[in-house]
Amino acid sequence: MAAEVGIIMGSLSDLPVMKRAALFLEELNIPFEVTIVSAHRTPERMVEYAQSAKSKGFKVIIAGAGGAAHLPGMIASLTTLPVIGVPIRSRNSLEGWDSLLSIVQMPSGVPVATVAVDGAENAAILAAQILGTFQPEIAQKLQVYKDNLKHKVLQAAQKIETEGWQSIVQE
Amino acid sequence: MAAEVGIIMGSLSDLPVMKRAALFLEELNIPFEVTIVSAHRTPERMVEYAQSAKSKGFKVIIAGAGGAAHLPGMIASLTTLPVIGVPIRSRNSLEGWDSLLSIVQMPSGVPVATVAVDGAENAAILAAQILGTFQPEIAQKLQVYKDNLKHKVLQAAQKIETEGWQSIVQE
Amino acid sequence: MAAEVGIIMGSLSDLPVMKRAALFLEELNIPFEVTIVSAHRTPERMVEYAQSAKSKGFKVIIAGAGGAAHLPGMIASLTTLPVIGVPIRSRNSLEGWDSLLSIVQMPSGVPVATVAVDGAENAAILAAQILGTFQPEIAQKLQVYKDNLKHKVLQAAQKIETEGWQSIVQE
Amino acid sequence: MAAEVGIIMGSLSDLPVMKRAALFLEELNIPFEVTIVSAHRTPERMVEYAQSAKSKGFKVIIAGAGGAAHLPGMIASLTTLPVIGVPIRSRNSLEGWDSLLSIVQMPSGVPVATVAVDGAENAAILAAQILGTFQPEIAQKLQVYKDNLKHKVLQAAQKIETEGWQSIVQE
Amino acid sequence: MAAEVGIIMGSLSDLPVMKRAALFLEELNIPFEVTIVSAHRTPERMVEYAQSAKSKGFKVIIAGAGGAAHLPGMIASLTTLPVIGVPIRSRNSLEGWDSLLSIVQMPSGVPVATVAVDGAENAAILAAQILGTFQPEIAQKLQVYKDNLKHKVLQAAQKIETEGWQSIVQE
Amino acid sequence: MAAEVGIIMGSLSDLPVMKRAALFLEELNIPFEVTIVSAHRTPERMVEYAQSAKSKGFKVIIAGAGGAAHLPGMIASLTTLPVIGVPIRSRNSLEGWDSLLSIVQMPSGVPVATVAVDGAENAAILAAQILGTFQPEIAQKLQVYKDNLKHKVLQAAQKIETEGWQSIVQE
Amino acid sequence: MAAEVGIIMGSLSDLPVMKRAALFLEELNIPFEVTIVSAHRTPERMVEYAQSAKSKGFKVIIAGAGGAAHLPGMIASLTTLPVIGVPIRSRNSLEGWDSLLSIVQMPSGVPVATVAVDGAENAAILAAQILGTFQPEIAQKLQVYKDNLKHKVLQAAQKIETEGWQSIVQE
Amino acid sequence: MAAEVGIIMGSLSDLPVMKRAALFLEELNIPFEVTIVSAHRTPERMVEYAQSAKSKGFKVIIAGAGGAAHLPGMIASLTTLPVIGVPIRSRNSLEGWDSLLSIVQMPSGVPVATVAVDGAENAAILAAQILGTFQPEIAQKLQVYKDNLKHKVLQAAQKIETEGWQSIVQE
Repeated sequence: MAAEVGIIMGSLSDLPVMKRAALFLEELNIPFEVTIVSAHRTPERMVEYAQSAKSKGFKVIIAGAGGAAHLPGMIASLTTLPVIGVPIRSRNSLEGWDSLLSIVQMPSGVPVATVAVDGAENAAILAAQILGTFQPEIAQKLQVYKDNLKHKVLQAAQKIETEGWQSIVQE
Repeated sequence: MAAEVGIIMGSLSDLPVMKRAALFLEELNIPFEVTIVSAHRTPERMVEYAQSAKSKGFKVIIAGAGGAAHLPGMIASLTTLPVIGVPIRSRNSLEGWDSLLSIVQMPSGVPVATVAVDGAENAAILAAQILGTFQPEIAQKLQVYKDNLKHKVLQAAQKIETEGWQSIVQE
Repeated sequence: MAAEVGIIMGSLSDLPVMKRAALFLEELNIPFEVTIVSAHRTPERMVEYAQSAKSKGFKVIIAGAGGAAHLPGMIASLTTLPVIGVPIRSRNSLEGWDSLLSIVQMPSGVPVATVAVDGAENAAILAAQILGTFQPEIAQKLQVYKDNLKHKVLQAAQKIETEGWQSIVQE
Repeated sequence: MAAEVGIIMGSLSDLPVMKRAALFLEELNIPFEVTIVSAHRTPERMVEYAQSAKSKGFKVIIAGAGGAAHLPGMIASLTTLPVIGVPIRSRNSLEGWDSLLSIVQMPSGVPVATVAVDGAENAAILAAQILGTFQPEIAQKLQVYKDNLKHKVLQAAQKIETEGWQSIVQE
Repeated sequence: MAAEVGIIMGSLSDLPVMKRAALFLEELNIPFEVTIVSAHRTPERMVEYAQSAKSKGFKVIIAGAGGAAHLPGMIASLTTLPVIGVPIRSRNSLEGWDSLLSIVQMPSGVPVATVAVDGAENAAILAAQILGTFQPEIAQKLQVYKDNLKHKVLQAAQKIETEGWQSIVQE
Repeated sequence: MAAEVGIIMGSLSDLPVMKRAALFLEELNIPFEVTIVSAHRTPERMVEYAQSAKSKGFKVIIAGAGGAAHLPGMIASLTTLPVIGVPIRSRNSLEGWDSLLSIVQMPSGVPVATVAVDGAENAAILAAQILGTFQPEIAQKLQVYKDNLKHKVLQAAQKIETEGWQSIVQE
Repeated sequence: MAAEVGIIMGSLSDLPVMKRAALFLEELNIPFEVTIVSAHRTPERMVEYAQSAKSKGFKVIIAGAGGAAHLPGMIASLTTLPVIGVPIRSRNSLEGWDSLLSIVQMPSGVPVATVAVDGAENAAILAAQILGTFQPEIAQKLQVYKDNLKHKVLQAAQKIETEGWQSIVQE
Repeated sequence: MAAEVGIIMGSLSDLPVMKRAALFLEELNIPFEVTIVSAHRTPERMVEYAQSAKSKGFKVIIAGAGGAAHLPGMIASLTTLPVIGVPIRSRNSLEGWDSLLSIVQMPSGVPVATVAVDGAENAAILAAQILGTFQPEIAQKLQVYKDNLKHKVLQAAQKIETEGWQSIVQE
């Protein structure tokens, strides 16, 4: 099945964060592709990736980057597909502040749909929501996922109400 | 034509920023609805708005808010539609930092597609990109819009190269 | 005895911080209830919790949350009881800055009594102070607690003055 | 009628912000007193104010301060009454960041119920909520106030839905 | 004479800041070219500009940008010429913090020589210093410029010492 | 009478802030000298100023600077006299954050006594306190000054208590 | 010999930082006293400490505190002695930002001589500099200390120049 | 061969970061010298170093410093050579914010080419780019280095595309 979501990141060191996006899409059976594209080390590859994204059948692109994080914004400048940006708190970033600001503060005309710092899973959920606007079966799966989240909270609530908060705490 | 995008904000004072979203959607002929929904002053209305959004035919929701900005995130908690958050630098916000962080830093499971502070136009472009994933005519219009942006930059470049930078500057 | 204070948090992972509130209320013999309520995962439960809080006899609600922390503010939007917010420096928060700003910067009309980042014990003390405004025996216990704090400082002062600062330091 | 709320601030220059607290309490017919107490210029007066607050019949103290804002915390160190702190964005503060942090980040044992920067009205609402825990008629008035807030939002919503967003915007 | 320095910026609105770079180079008789290149609106033009910069004879590139400022870093990714970045405090930037961080925090391998927020004149001085490493006459002019700066301070010092500080102050 | 305090700043544009230091010392009859010394434009003059400060009879140096503010710290590196640093919120500083951090965060071995952003008057008071440690008549004047501060607060308090807060407020 | 410097801190947990002040004064043979004084837990003791400081013979007070750090400023409000504030990055502070701002941003009239975060040694050096303004033998010792600092740097320089940077690095 | 680049830092503790600059220059066969120069502990040595830098044949100076980082700016004030500043996140710096701001925010007239926090390798690359403007063989080596960076990314991309993202991730 042709990939509907492209997941990219600047280096393999971003994979521990970005794999959470892949895992979520896998869980929802949404076809996707993962690769490495660096705005600063492979700018031509980045241009090519963005320009061919639509013709390859991608509907959404998820791009993760840290520090002076230009990948999501530059991809967005080169395609009309929605681009989701994941600010990564990489080893050299200023606790993620640089990653966040250099992704979210895009100028008028070229939006990047930004999620929380290290929020790769949320990026995948957002991608699924976007696909779900016209694919009801994905929207349905998201509803199931949402119900599961709720269920887990209710279970935790029941546990704490039944067993008592004292019995649960471990620091 | 049924509205595909819902634009909401907490109060009329947000309209000077949020109207840019409306203007863009109008320009692209994308049907939308604008109203006031306050997370903190009309929480029940907010719940109802979010829960009925899908059945009313909305595909995307754009929510603007300032300060401790809970509207986008709470809407996102109540629907599987993609929600776009616009952090507003309102009179009482800390230069927009509070608005930005309380919208973008959503927990795992409930993403908000966050744009720049006061970035209402980009929110509308992002909504159009989302709709464009399955409506090629919208994607086409976005391409035209993108080409126009490029054209204006090229014109400015030509102007500055022809007339000289000295003749243009006015402070 | 009916609970006078409701302590809530978004997930079990907040319990190591929030239990300090429970421990303090226990120490002062103030009846309370602890449970899990998530603004983003169980929004309907949150509405119900807030709306029934007064009729259940609660006088004060303590709500802890991290990141884009909406729980305290949303509870406050749904009740006229005083709500105390505890910003939690959770794993994904930006060192607590997002938690703090999204709790304290509430718009006019809907206050949240915000304490320090991870300040759950202070939240409980504040709850006791609120109850103490009309329950003199609680105010008295708070005075005893305050005297104890002072006593411990005086003991430390005596120790350092008698034994010398050199003998105490351990890094 | 004896004052139930004490409103204090460091100088007359804080009055434009702090008067909003007075106006709200006046509206709700809650008796209060306003005066000037400076932590740094009249420390002895501050000690005396805090120590006599309870015997004068105060139930709650609202203290506003800017910059290195010590007034709320020092009052809280000297009484068991709940103290509400209003961080003021005064002329010499760093956009309110110093005021906020030096009020909210109190150490364990001595809470200050902190509201938003310049949030004096919310401080008064919070004071009313505290009084309302045992004075049902105040809680009722708060409910009316809350209903009014909701009503105004609903009116604005109706206006924008009826008249259209275009007719309203003025920048 | 062939231009040795290329000055670029994303839009005409950056010219009031960036013209200071042009004025300085003009003063030192260093040939330069000014034009508009937008990373986000004309990405292909940007690639072409960067890739042809060396063959056109440029030795240094000065790039100004605001908000999520990607222009300097992307140019740097496409050439081995030194690139000087000027963070611009544009209308939509967060007081310049976003501009600064998204320019200076470049990943290993692709430096941008960053100057102060709105520091376009310093960017030109730095460009001249770079050219001066191998063009002694430029280094000499820089020494004259530096001597002038010193001279002006000494004059101000003399004025204040002779006339007295009271006679000078005007607020 | 030989000057006991040296007041320096990097340029005449700092005088509107720094003159408050001069005015205070004048009021207390403490002899002082004001001049311009720029760390970055007249580094040799700065070295000379610092090295001759003690032999000229100065007891304390007050240095004001903005942006990357190196003057106070560099003076401190060149003398054993106490140096008081005034972070100035100059036109190009990042709201004073850069000025504050580059003055206060001195490495071990070379302290700068830092006061608030734009706190030139406090710098002068601190200088007087330092002189007052061994000149009782200065300490006495400081006590009078302190009493005056207190007196003004008490007057304001009386005014607000007598006339009522309503009659005073003007926004 | 009567103590000339008083070193205080809010709790024993501040001692690992504050002992560096004690060690330095000991090294210079300057008599001092160390004790615990908490602004928030022992406010009366704090008032008494500050008011009796001068009559006890203290010339300077060094006060360390973290979080909403009120101790240095409150001491300064109660004495005309110079007060040196040490912002402590305590366990609950926001990386020291709250400590720094709530100490340095004092209002006009009441300065605190603030040193770097955790800069207790510099506080002691500053205290010695203040004493040295009228005690030439202390100024002399400071000069020796300064010469030692220089000497160590010169030794390190020689080591790196002789042995080579490769032989020294250990990570 | 005479050194073309001078690398300096305030203390040996900066070497683990700054050695990356040395390693890069070594790799490119660019002659350089490393030594220790402290702005605050050896100010005279610093002045001498800067003033003799040009006559010793240096073309560029790389200066690393942390906290209130004055070394790069002061060197820049004393020479017309380009100075590259490396903000170091040293043990006592505020996560590098103080280092960054006190290096990058230089006043008009005295630029420092600032790289990312701890970005010593990028400082060396920038130095090579500066030398490369007139030494084509260095520019060529930089191109090779750039090609290598690209190659490594392409290899990582191939690896992830061939082997699959699941097989690579290790946390």
